[in-house]
Amino acid sequence: MLRQTERAPKGDASQPVWRDKFAQVRAASLRLVSALSPEDCVVQSMPDASPVKWHLAHTSWFFETFILEAFEPDFSPFDPSFRVLFNSYYNGIGDKYPRLQRGMVTRPGLDEVLAYRRDVDTRMAALFARELPPARGGELAGLVALGLQHEQQHQELIVTDIKHLFSLNPAPPPYPSLGAPAKNDDLAQEWVEFSGGLVEIGHAGGGFCFDNEMPRHRQFLEPYALSSRLVTNGEYAAFIDDGGYRNPAFWLSDGWAFLQANATLHPLYWAPDGSGGWCDYTARGVIPIDPAAPCVHLSFYEAAAFALWAGARLPTEAEWEHAALSDGLAQMFGTAWQWTSSSYAPYPGFAAAAGAVGEYNGKFMVNQYVLRGSSVATPPGHARITYRNFFPASARWQFMGIRLAR
Amino acid sequence: MLRQTERAPKGDASQPVWRDKFAQVRAASLRLVSALSPEDCVVQSMPDASPVKWHLAHTSWFFETFILEAFEPDFSPFDPSFRVLFNSYYNGIGDKYPRLQRGMVTRPGLDEVLAYRRDVDTRMAALFARELPPARGGELAGLVALGLQHEQQHQELIVTDIKHLFSLNPAPPPYPSLGAPAKNDDLAQEWVEFSGGLVEIGHAGGGFCFDNEMPRHRQFLEPYALSSRLVTNGEYAAFIDDGGYRNPAFWLSDGWAFLQANATLHPLYWAPDGSGGWCDYTARGVIPIDPAAPCVHLSFYEAAAFALWAGARLPTEAEWEHAALSDGLAQMFGTAWQWTSSSYAPYPGFAAAAGAVGEYNGKFMVNQYVLRGSSVATPPGHARITYRNFFPASARWQFMGIRLAR
Amino acid sequence: MLRQTERAPKGDASQPVWRDKFAQVRAASLRLVSALSPEDCVVQSMPDASPVKWHLAHTSWFFETFILEAFEPDFSPFDPSFRVLFNSYYNGIGDKYPRLQRGMVTRPGLDEVLAYRRDVDTRMAALFARELPPARGGELAGLVALGLQHEQQHQELIVTDIKHLFSLNPAPPPYPSLGAPAKNDDLAQEWVEFSGGLVEIGHAGGGFCFDNEMPRHRQFLEPYALSSRLVTNGEYAAFIDDGGYRNPAFWLSDGWAFLQANATLHPLYWAPDGSGGWCDYTARGVIPIDPAAPCVHLSFYEAAAFALWAGARLPTEAEWEHAALSDGLAQMFGTAWQWTSSSYAPYPGFAAAAGAVGEYNGKFMVNQYVLRGSSVATPPGHARITYRNFFPASARWQFMGIRLAR
Amino acid sequence: MLRQTERAPKGDASQPVWRDKFAQVRAASLRLVSALSPEDCVVQSMPDASPVKWHLAHTSWFFETFILEAFEPDFSPFDPSFRVLFNSYYNGIGDKYPRLQRGMVTRPGLDEVLAYRRDVDTRMAALFARELPPARGGELAGLVALGLQHEQQHQELIVTDIKHLFSLNPAPPPYPSLGAPAKNDDLAQEWVEFSGGLVEIGHAGGGFCFDNEMPRHRQFLEPYALSSRLVTNGEYAAFIDDGGYRNPAFWLSDGWAFLQANATLHPLYWAPDGSGGWCDYTARGVIPIDPAAPCVHLSFYEAAAFALWAGARLPTEAEWEHAALSDGLAQMFGTAWQWTSSSYAPYPGFAAAAGAVGEYNGKFMVNQYVLRGSSVATPPGHARITYRNFFPASARWQFMGIRLAR
Repeated sequence: MLRQTERAPKGDASQPVWRDKFAQVRAASLRLVSALSPEDCVVQSMPDASPVKWHLAHTSWFFETFILEAFEPDFSPFDPSFRVLFNSYYNGIGDKYPRLQRGMVTRPGLDEVLAYRRDVDTRMAALFARELPPARGGELAGLVALGLQHEQQHQELIVTDIKHLFSLNPAPPPYPSLGAPAKNDDLAQEWVEFSGGLVEIGHAGGGFCFDNEMPRHRQFLEPYALSSRLVTNGEYAAFIDDGGYRNPAFWLSDGWAFLQANATLHPLYWAPDGSGGWCDYTARGVIPIDPAAPCVHLSFYEAAAFALWAGARLPTEAEWEHAALSDGLAQMFGTAWQWTSSSYAPYPGFAAAAGAVGEYNGKFMVNQYVLRGSSVATPPGHARITYRNFFPASARWQFMGIRLAR
Repeated sequence: MLRQTERAPKGDASQPVWRDKFAQVRAASLRLVSALSPEDCVVQSMPDASPVKWHLAHTSWFFETFILEAFEPDFSPFDPSFRVLFNSYYNGIGDKYPRLQRGMVTRPGLDEVLAYRRDVDTRMAALFARELPPARGGELAGLVALGLQHEQQHQELIVTDIKHLFSLNPAPPPYPSLGAPAKNDDLAQEWVEFSGGLVEIGHAGGGFCFDNEMPRHRQFLEPYALSSRLVTNGEYAAFIDDGGYRNPAFWLSDGWAFLQANATLHPLYWAPDGSGGWCDYTARGVIPIDPAAPCVHLSFYEAAAFALWAGARLPTEAEWEHAALSDGLAQMFGTAWQWTSSSYAPYPGFAAAAGAVGEYNGKFMVNQYVLRGSSVATPPGHARITYRNFFPASARWQFMGIRLAR
Repeated sequence: MLRQTERAPKGDASQPVWRDKFAQVRAASLRLVSALSPEDCVVQSMPDASPVKWHLAHTSWFFETFILEAFEPDFSPFDPSFRVLFNSYYNGIGDKYPRLQRGMVTRPGLDEVLAYRRDVDTRMAALFARELPPARGGELAGLVALGLQHEQQHQELIVTDIKHLFSLNPAPPPYPSLGAPAKNDDLAQEWVEFSGGLVEIGHAGGGFCFDNEMPRHRQFLEPYALSSRLVTNGEYAAFIDDGGYRNPAFWLSDGWAFLQANATLHPLYWAPDGSGGWCDYTARGVIPIDPAAPCVHLSFYEAAAFALWAGARLPTEAEWEHAALSDGLAQMFGTAWQWTSSSYAPYPGFAAAAGAVGEYNGKFMVNQYVLRGSSVATPPGHARITYRNFFPASARWQFMGIRLAR
Repeated sequence: MLRQTERAPKGDASQPVWRDKFAQVRAASLRLVSALSPEDCVVQSMPDASPVKWHLAHTSWFFETFILEAFEPDFSPFDPSFRVLFNSYYNGIGDKYPRLQRGMVTRPGLDEVLAYRRDVDTRMAALFARELPPARGGELAGLVALGLQHEQQHQELIVTDIKHLFSLNPAPPPYPSLGAPAKNDDLAQEWVEFSGGLVEIGHAGGGFCFDNEMPRHRQFLEPYALSSRLVTNGEYAAFIDDGGYRNPAFWLSDGWAFLQANATLHPLYWAPDGSGGWCDYTARGVIPIDPAAPCVHLSFYEAAAFALWAGARLPTEAEWEHAALSDGLAQMFGTAWQWTSSSYAPYPGFAAAAGAVGEYNGKFMVNQYVLRGSSVATPPGHARITYRNFFPASARWQFMGIRLAR
């Protein structure tokens, strides 16, 4: 699910660098799924998730459709039916196979999709070996950069989607992940103060970013403080023990309705351990919760309720981004995405790119909330201080946690 | 549906003024429903709407529960069962009759609810005639002010709810309204420029406001322009004629899904007139659309799609409020609420009031968008420049229109 | 809801008899609703129910549409819009107002519907005073007979629909009923044996019947026994106490799913009395259950589960009808409709009548089960041994009880 | 999905016969799925269907649970978790994995399920080689007979479930089937007359049957006629051309509602061919309909509507069974199951078997209709004249056709 598009980086790009980067990111996708069976890769576990096979095919489709079709002299698709089958939501490209039926596509099988990947890789290698006029080379570099960022986003989705699927198994097996598990150092909680004022946020240019990070612009911030680390499992368990899921006073009205409708009593992958405590489904299987570890798989509603219970609030995305430039805050990246109180909206002066790639700039800028940082499932090198992730307030299957503000 | 609460105005309040104001607002409610039958008053036409009878009772319940119970020496409820029956969403007060079944309550009938209103009015008059210590008098004044603002909000809901109910009648009768119909002067459209900068928004104190309008605070605005008037029926019809409802490129993703799920092809109360044009259900019945009149009953999705089609955007609520202090903008009040691009969120430093009245400050601050101004159905004197109305992006049954920005 | 149509009785009919019968049945409808308010009469409490006002109008529409329109020389409808508004399901008549929105029709009000009734009554009286050729007179008599049976069916629905509506009131008021409450004589339970063999069932002609009761035909019955009386509240409470609603072994698969989906733990209008017993909502209000009274408001699923628990079964409709000709069975009529194990299906040789009246003969003969006898809410004189009532297996809001067979 | 259970055949059984029969049926299951990929076998395409892998495991679970556990001296399950995972609906056995999530079980994979099958086969072979006391041997033979009938039922479901899954593929591949495709000899349609009278239906003993086929009992039949062959594609297309799907007069009320809710305009796997005709998805892929071939994949609603349009009706199951004893009727077996007008109900005197195997006799005898005969997907040797298949009136994914009666 690519929900963001980019602007082409300025200037030309040295192709050997892109060739190596391309090979590296594409190989990482295969490494990620190497322990999965064809059955693991075909099933769609819920409407928000996609089959692993679909992720592998769609990311290849992206290179084939937006690059090979534009740059190959005698372009011929690997399989014409893939144009529809692996289009996610690009109306500008044409028809799309229904999202809710992605799990019904047992054919082509995983083998054929892997062959599709190899074919695209071979043709991309040939393209990298070609001499292109500088302008054309710059255009290519921009599209390759976008395609690789896109593939990295899907790598994170592969982790969270397969985790969700495995969680439905009576005996959930370990799930694969690219990154190393976060270390939990039993960090002390402290409040770090920021004076605010008229600050700038957004991407300043020079390097890749998605267009939703631009333009850089000014915002006025009142003085504020952020917690030095994320909320832990132990703290969240205390909220539950204090009747957190039974007292409507802590909850946004929609959040309370969500609890009732789904009979929700704890974070997504927690379960009672039978003796008053909690187990959690983690990369090491189902184990007792680690009280010092960051609490993840929380919805915006749960994050907001916990914050109210704790006498605090969630930060705005501007507060988070401004604070991220300073010292003293742990777990900003690589642990869990951090819910902000900011609705996902265009920055002042935001303008959509042209063509199918940019057709949907801003298309998702409604009814979603921004998360900042990155998670244990985010591929190394993918995160940025200005990066804006976003999900509906009810989403829980990503690695989503809480950094308190006040 | 009261979704906002207030802070008590500072200082004491002369009770005769409040007594007269009380009588005036309460009488306006009765005037509004004087042409309705008992049948008209009992039915709930959809989950978002409430029966007129419920509005009449709930507003009385508000005075009885939050004022008479606190100020009457020997308080005894008019009917103990009303405490549950006419509680909207105050968990601090106790149980609530299910919202979706409000239309099932045929007894008490309209007559009994009107008797309830008279009883509350009589007891309030007795309270106004009592001598109170200054602090207690100030507290009373604050609660009366809140109760009257509350009743005025429900007056607007009575108009929009009865309009929705009547629209389901095979021959929709005229619906009642407090205000005079807006005049449509065939205004020319112009862009009014604002230089922006570091501005202040929010209520400055001195007079009533809801707590969501506070605290007053600074925001930085880039230079911007607002349209001098609202989008007209004629302009909106041109959007439809240009394929507006058939082209996903204009729509937010959620908005497009809403169109498909509801087979939506035009504003809420429009219908094809059989010869290529449109009829509209208005206070004068079902008539051909007036091309110069403001287009109303539009969702946030429709407002955003029209704006994109028109090469413009929706204003932020800060832009709207800052602009409202200047000359040159028509139809800011009394015509239609104006969608902003701002998600409904707490102002920096927002804090909830204590007790049941303020129990839910901020409870609705998620998944909704702010509307500014006021509409033809808003009671005279109720609107303010800092007023924040809010509804989900899909809501259409209020008088909601579009003021473009760029 | 008329779900059955008739064949015209053979031969002419003396009109004074019909005139008096007409006046009597029509007056009974008004008597039935005399204690209801306009609000009581406008609300639709669930999709299966209709507003009382709709019943009053629809039964008049039936006479106007199928008789006055055919017999009045210069027929002109009372109100042309009523043709659509009060058509239930006759596609042959034309459009129909959506069934699920019947409760939205606040106008015409009850007064206007009563005026409509008076107008139809006046015109029917004029028609009864006219001289008609014998064939035409016979045709009229047949249609009047049908219209009156139709009105009586709606009288029963008025009772059950208003009972359902009132049950949603926090303090359910008494509901009106035509018949006298059934006496509960604390009857002893006995098995009455029948030898079966080749028997005839169905209507033999000579008097009114619906066409689903014909043709009379032969069926072969094995020897069987029926209970001398209906299952009592006390017996049913023993089933509950024995874990009846918690043990899937007693339930049809669909029935168990219905229990889980609706969290059903007792008959429709029962509620725990707080001390281990049960209250019931009856014509005398909410009172402790009478252990000797017949248990009513049971679904087919509950009836079948109870029978299995009791080591018995439900009778077929042929068994019931054959037994009804003999002595020894109490509570066959006037107490509660009795679920049979027979799916509602056409009798061998069944054929539909011509025209709109008979357009839908058999239209409902799928996914429903036959009930025999009549209930406390059935108008006196309406029941017959061959009468076939029918409802889906999940229906509970009619007065439905259990007679065991084995 | 086994929905029927058996009575143990009387008398002992020669074990070599059962051993060979066992090997033959079990091998047929593997042959049926030999062309399927692991991905094909894991997906559940709709709530009514199950994954192929689940069918393969569940049929093995049946032998392990009801035979090996009872006959092996030192029984130890292949995998203890399978007891829950592959239990379909036997509450007497214990917990069941949720039916709607069968498609989420990617592990155990197909390989492990095939190993499970081999293990069960090996242990069954050892059991066949043992000497048993006669009574015990008879018991075993009865259970083996039941298990093999059960496996054959699932073989038919494998065909229809995989056909449904493949139909969702943008390019539906051929689906496997055990039987040879039916020959379509362009048979002339004739009416075959039967005189009826007091006849006997039901299984007479001597050979295997399910308990729902018993006891044999008498029914009285009026004279009737059945069509000599099934309704063809050409005849059904004429019904469509005559406005069959647009005219409510042909349809049962529930059937018309089903059409509207599902926008149904043709049989399940038909699609417009772009030039006014129809294509069908068959074992040979998507091809133009053969006008002389029997029309299949029709719901009870479609069958009843076609019959009414054709001036005929559906037969009762007694008529069908009585006629099946005579000459002159083609396509009774091996072509398509034939909808009868008979609701699925217990025969007079039906009694449930004891224990978990028989726990649910009759559990499905509500809201379903009986189909008679057998289809192109029924394993050879599985059908019987007294066999009662049954599905809800809306089901279409089995090979279901129409034999007219009058």
